[in-house]
Amino acid sequence: MNQELRETLVLLSRTPKALDALLRDLPDALTMRTEGEGTWTAYDVVGHLIHGELTDWIPRTKRLLEFGESKAFDKFDRTAQERESRGKTLGQLLDEFAKLRAKNIQEISGMKLKAEDLERKGMHPSLGTVTLGNLLSTWAAHDMTHLHQVSRILAHQYREQVGPWTVYLGVLQCNGHSS
Amino acid sequence: MNQELRETLVLLSRTPKALDALLRDLPDALTMRTEGEGTWTAYDVVGHLIHGELTDWIPRTKRLLEFGESKAFDKFDRTAQERESRGKTLGQLLDEFAKLRAKNIQEISGMKLKAEDLERKGMHPSLGTVTLGNLLSTWAAHDMTHLHQVSRILAHQYREQVGPWTVYLGVLQCNGHSS
Repeated sequence: MNQELRETLVLLSRTPKALDALLRDLPDALTMRTEGEGTWTAYDVVGHLIHGELTDWIPRTKRLLEFGESKAFDKFDRTAQERESRGKTLGQLLDEFAKLRAKNIQEISGMKLKAEDLERKGMHPSLGTVTLGNLLSTWAAHDMTHLHQVSRILAHQYREQVGPWTVYLGVLQCNGHSS
Repeated sequence: MNQELRETLVLLSRTPKALDALLRDLPDALTMRTEGEGTWTAYDVVGHLIHGELTDWIPRTKRLLEFGESKAFDKFDRTAQERESRGKTLGQLLDEFAKLRAKNIQEISGMKLKAEDLERKGMHPSLGTVTLGNLLSTWAAHDMTHLHQVSRILAHQYREQVGPWTVYLGVLQCNGHSS
């Protein structure tokens, strides 16, 4: 397997563990609150990551390998977690995310992709031509976007309490570009 | 103990575990790279958090409880990790951070602080009057600022590889306000 891809898969294997260590059994006052109207809770983010494991990364990899640029990826539903997480606890979502991610990493590993495979092209419905390397790197960077968002959501719950320190806390200046 | 403080201590107990799950034994290509000149690696961030455990949160709490506003906190050294981390592996730093954090949470718990204690005032060398509640909330929000930073540093390593997806990845728009 390509060395860069191997490293990406290591990072991808860490996200469920990191979110679990951070969020499981935290008080609802931290995990079930948003940054304001129209923004997500940490709970919502985990549901969104699950939906990605089910419908984004692996199905798009397969589409690209099978159809190249001739058949675009299906669009990604950014609000699916509103339906799909319903009735589930955060603990259940964390378990589900970990299980799906482990299975998906195994599936990608089994493809034994080489450097030249990462140059193969597919069609994104809005962005146009992308490579398999772009897609798999985005998988990891997308995890980091949402870890970045979760840390910002949690910090937001302390916005008032930190008082004058707010000016020193970079995360409180972050304008929500990753929600 | 005050309920909000109890919740804050739960979050504070999670940060070492989350960073450990994310970073331990990750390839150096992720943990030892910065976002560019004058910025930190994930390794640097863990060293900075250790220095906070040693010189910031607990010593400032004690200063405030002993002297109120009459004696300002010592200034915090934001580059101490450049000296103090020297020769240590990331694994050693993660162990040290976890150990110090656990000890410090135990120390705060032992103080049995009540709601009225959180209103007690101290003197920050630049920000002026702050309360104990501000200080302890900042401890947690500061953790989140640096988790936010670490996720951004890791995402940065994929900046080129994600190709056209860069426009959708909020973390790549983050301008480093938390470094």
